[in-house]
Amino acid sequence: MTGLGSVVALSGGVGGAKLVWGLAVAMDPLNLTVIANPGDDFEHLGLAICPDLDTVTYTLAGHANQYTGWGRANETWTFMDALESIGGETWFRLGDGDLALQVERTRRLSAGECLGDVTADICHRWGIAANIRPASGSRVRTVVETDIGDLSFQHYFVRDQCAPRVTGFRFDGASTARPDEAALAALADPSLRAVLICPSNPFISIDPILAIPGYRAAIAATSAAVIAVSPIIGGQAVKGPAAKMLAELGLAVSAQSVWRHYGDLIDAIVLDTADVRLADAARADGLDVLVTPTVMGDDAGKKALAHAILAFADSTRALAKT
Amino acid sequence: MTGLGSVVALSGGVGGAKLVWGLAVAMDPLNLTVIANPGDDFEHLGLAICPDLDTVTYTLAGHANQYTGWGRANETWTFMDALESIGGETWFRLGDGDLALQVERTRRLSAGECLGDVTADICHRWGIAANIRPASGSRVRTVVETDIGDLSFQHYFVRDQCAPRVTGFRFDGASTARPDEAALAALADPSLRAVLICPSNPFISIDPILAIPGYRAAIAATSAAVIAVSPIIGGQAVKGPAAKMLAELGLAVSAQSVWRHYGDLIDAIVLDTADVRLADAARADGLDVLVTPTVMGDDAGKKALAHAILAFADSTRALAKT
Repeated sequence: MTGLGSVVALSGGVGGAKLVWGLAVAMDPLNLTVIANPGDDFEHLGLAICPDLDTVTYTLAGHANQYTGWGRANETWTFMDALESIGGETWFRLGDGDLALQVERTRRLSAGECLGDVTADICHRWGIAANIRPASGSRVRTVVETDIGDLSFQHYFVRDQCAPRVTGFRFDGASTARPDEAALAALADPSLRAVLICPSNPFISIDPILAIPGYRAAIAATSAAVIAVSPIIGGQAVKGPAAKMLAELGLAVSAQSVWRHYGDLIDAIVLDTADVRLADAARADGLDVLVTPTVMGDDAGKKALAHAILAFADSTRALAKT
Repeated sequence: MTGLGSVVALSGGVGGAKLVWGLAVAMDPLNLTVIANPGDDFEHLGLAICPDLDTVTYTLAGHANQYTGWGRANETWTFMDALESIGGETWFRLGDGDLALQVERTRRLSAGECLGDVTADICHRWGIAANIRPASGSRVRTVVETDIGDLSFQHYFVRDQCAPRVTGFRFDGASTARPDEAALAALADPSLRAVLICPSNPFISIDPILAIPGYRAAIAATSAAVIAVSPIIGGQAVKGPAAKMLAELGLAVSAQSVWRHYGDLIDAIVLDTADVRLADAARADGLDVLVTPTVMGDDAGKKALAHAILAFADSTRALAKT
């Protein structure tokens, strides 16, 4: 039945969070489950920090900083100034308000609570109706293999500003990590309308999720349409190092590299109108294709993309059933 | 030799820190060692918090909040607001800048550094010449015994606003705590000019220090004058629950109860001019007496009291040697 059923979205940070925000407006958010990338998570200053999970949470709560793409709106920085004055590490910027989430989450995890429950409680307090799930409560850490050696993700991304040349990736802990049970249940929901792979970096935002046992199989098993939104538009990444990584890995900086990266896992690809010329190539690879504006420059753009993808998902599913 | 030599001050929070500030101006601060009360320390939000140590440190660094008597000047409170929004405990107010010290100290202690070294490093970075020492790197916790049961110090002091009726005190961990080696060495210095017991609460600011093995013996062994400054002036405490505690313990709310509490440990008492009528009683108890303004309403008052006490210490010592 068109327009009903649940949706699962796999998301990294900024770009994914924008689409998730649009989805939460375009559909009943109670039927939306977001599986957030755990690969960016790290321990810093003794705190358990989950950047992508938090970007999604802040975005749906209306607390996100629209200018930086990370952290909170109306943030203050007294903590960082004082930390610098006592010689603490300041390369990773933690705002005063952001710190509340890090400190309280760390306290609760140390007290034995699981990350999924802590996240759900914070979402409840902030009035978030969608179900934001960390892909795993286990430790999963992206390691970026580069020309200067292996780098933990935040060292590569924040401290070194993505400057080292990438040769590969691995996801420490992923192979033995436990997938989030609520996330797996959402993927197994018989009323599932679509699985969306958000316009996030395939290598460092989506692959860490897919590397956790259970997710690939659950996505392969669903009868719902599995749709990826390309984060590469007109040969460029809207934000972040996706284009640089593709080039360094010897791949074309193109949406085609994205859909081929996902391979059989997806049924369909969403291309920006700038990439309309790639639609036939995608169809030739056996994919359904939606060509639509995907940049999401404002809230109207987020909503429009979400509506377009949901309608496309329903038509794709209807097609598959005929 | 008058005017030279080292000084050791035992201090709690606000009142003690004021006198310590005056001493650091009135003498060569390199010769000043401050032993800070560990009994107020506690774990909160997973952080190692040392309120009295920090008040002394902030005061000497010029970072102290003159209005609240605790925390930092020019503080912001974004963290507490955000913490409240996710249901965290907010009865103990931690400012955004204050939090830097708590987070970084907790990280360094967890990494195996000792509290004395971390404190010394922060003092160095903030240009503090005096030697601020935590009385112990071990866990020493004041428990306030009250009519509603035993309360950890911060629950009694901050959360319950000192409302419960006090019946006694104990200092968990003190009997097996290790005294700070630098503090003990300062007390054993042959050039020691004076040991000052600051105008801090005898029960909850000074007794926790004295309960740690080694301090009483070291103070008893010194040939320097041991001088207490009464925190009770004209039958009232300048700040805090000292007067209320004296009354609840069935003791006179008077400087006399203070000097008798310290007993043989001290050689002399400093009384405010409001208590000049008590001077003879103190002398009758075998003490040298200085009567001088002790309220320290501004920086000039802190300096004047420090100068007066140092001159008094030298004359008392000279007297003892004749």
